[in-house]
Amino acid sequence: MRQFNKVTIIGVGLIGGSIGLAIKKKGLAKKVAGVFRRKSTLKKALARKAVDKGYMTVEEGIKGADLIIVATPVSKIIEVLRKVMKKARRGAIVTDAGSTKKLVVDRAEKLSRKSNAYFVGSHPMAGSEHSSVEFARDNLFEGSPCIVTKTARTNKTALKKVANFWKGLGGNVKVMTPRQHDRSVALISHLPHIVAFSLAGAIPEKELAYAAEGFKDTTRVASSDPHLWADIFLTNKEDVLNACRLFEKYYKNILKVLSKGDYEGVVALLKKAKLKRDTFKNKSEFRNPKSETISKSE
Amino acid sequence: MRQFNKVTIIGVGLIGGSIGLAIKKKGLAKKVAGVFRRKSTLKKALARKAVDKGYMTVEEGIKGADLIIVATPVSKIIEVLRKVMKKARRGAIVTDAGSTKKLVVDRAEKLSRKSNAYFVGSHPMAGSEHSSVEFARDNLFEGSPCIVTKTARTNKTALKKVANFWKGLGGNVKVMTPRQHDRSVALISHLPHIVAFSLAGAIPEKELAYAAEGFKDTTRVASSDPHLWADIFLTNKEDVLNACRLFEKYYKNILKVLSKGDYEGVVALLKKAKLKRDTFKNKSEFRNPKSETISKSE
Repeated sequence: MRQFNKVTIIGVGLIGGSIGLAIKKKGLAKKVAGVFRRKSTLKKALARKAVDKGYMTVEEGIKGADLIIVATPVSKIIEVLRKVMKKARRGAIVTDAGSTKKLVVDRAEKLSRKSNAYFVGSHPMAGSEHSSVEFARDNLFEGSPCIVTKTARTNKTALKKVANFWKGLGGNVKVMTPRQHDRSVALISHLPHIVAFSLAGAIPEKELAYAAEGFKDTTRVASSDPHLWADIFLTNKEDVLNACRLFEKYYKNILKVLSKGDYEGVVALLKKAKLKRDTFKNKSEFRNPKSETISKSE
Repeated sequence: MRQFNKVTIIGVGLIGGSIGLAIKKKGLAKKVAGVFRRKSTLKKALARKAVDKGYMTVEEGIKGADLIIVATPVSKIIEVLRKVMKKARRGAIVTDAGSTKKLVVDRAEKLSRKSNAYFVGSHPMAGSEHSSVEFARDNLFEGSPCIVTKTARTNKTALKKVANFWKGLGGNVKVMTPRQHDRSVALISHLPHIVAFSLAGAIPEKELAYAAEGFKDTTRVASSDPHLWADIFLTNKEDVLNACRLFEKYYKNILKVLSKGDYEGVVALLKKAKLKRDTFKNKSEFRNPKSETISKSE
């Protein structure tokens, strides 16, 4: 099952830590190194055995690595990639785990021109409202959608290796362009976050005493890291704003029929929404455990 | 622990069925009767032992009952109460489980004038996106907020008995006016439902293949019964529309700073929302298992 000799994870939080745990559980690499910004996180990651060895600089950490994964917050990825693409050994494969792809992949491909390494963009769509390594787990990617990006410049062998890596971690791999990715995640991830933050922000604190399961689930992701999500929204601004427009249209239609007291009109809009949500539920419950094969997506 | 001799539940779905199961588990009544609209539901409820005996008419079902609970969808409550308040035995206590209270309690109090029974409004804030008796469970009300309404016309002994009943079922009882109730639930329950339905309705179906945990939780309640929720929204229209305005204000503020590319502005609004959501999480995790006592709320 081994796919790589040494994998280096830069940024070992919930995602990076879970990658480390999953690689080790599945035996996908001989060694897993981590690069840290804080010593305290390095200690926690070693204690959780998320990495075999920790480093405080990119240069040391990626030495000899044949797969390098940048799992920092999206705003730090480019900065880290600048060093990585310069110092990675010949033929190394570099990927990331950023929630937006167009900006990252464009920049990374520019850096690739002068590099000995290959870059392929990734976005494992797993995680939770928590972002620290304490919440990492080895099954975080099991059955999760995992997007790998392909552009005219993407090296096909590197793409296959990255796709197989996420599959090896249990991910449900889809290959698409960075543009398609950003449009999709704006709709199914960034928009729900905007809405959840707005809901949690809007409700007067004294009312929370009566809040029950509906409020709890609808706003769960509003507990996510504000810096992380500000980065994501800003690096995907146009697509996020377009997604918001789509949401507002449906929302305003509901309010319109409600204001008129039009029972059948309200029922019709709620039914359409329920149908879609139920389809999703059934799909995800019976989700094919086997990932799409790379040949199909090409 | 017995509080009543015979309790009759009219409308045995998720809520009514769970009330029956919980009464029997806690030994709060000698007999639990159910009134049904469909024979098929009667069979299911008997199979689940949610009631001891089932009836197809209100008149038969409430005979001799000292507590009658109307657990039908909110649009049917008044119609059912018309029969109940006429036929209930002298001194019987009548309550409901409707999600909106002003309309129900106003009408019920008019009916009370010519009745031998006492009416007290209730809203156990438990439930899920499911509405059938198959999903009923005896611990549905454990730790759930449960609102009991009080007006100038409410009989104090009846109020105490109803409050103690929900406490006996594990509910976290709060007493408030129907007006306060409707304003609160518009914010913490009806608004999240409007938003969840809008999100699920707005997202193009083909995108759902990539949807993950964030979308799943944020839209869970969009799988709820469209008729039930159209009723709730329409019977609490003004408060729901006011709650929506509050939501829109926060939402538009986020979009405004995002459009400007104002990172600090976005972070500030997300932080404020996260803080509120985290407060709620902590509150609900450490929620005092003991209910507010009735004397405190009076």
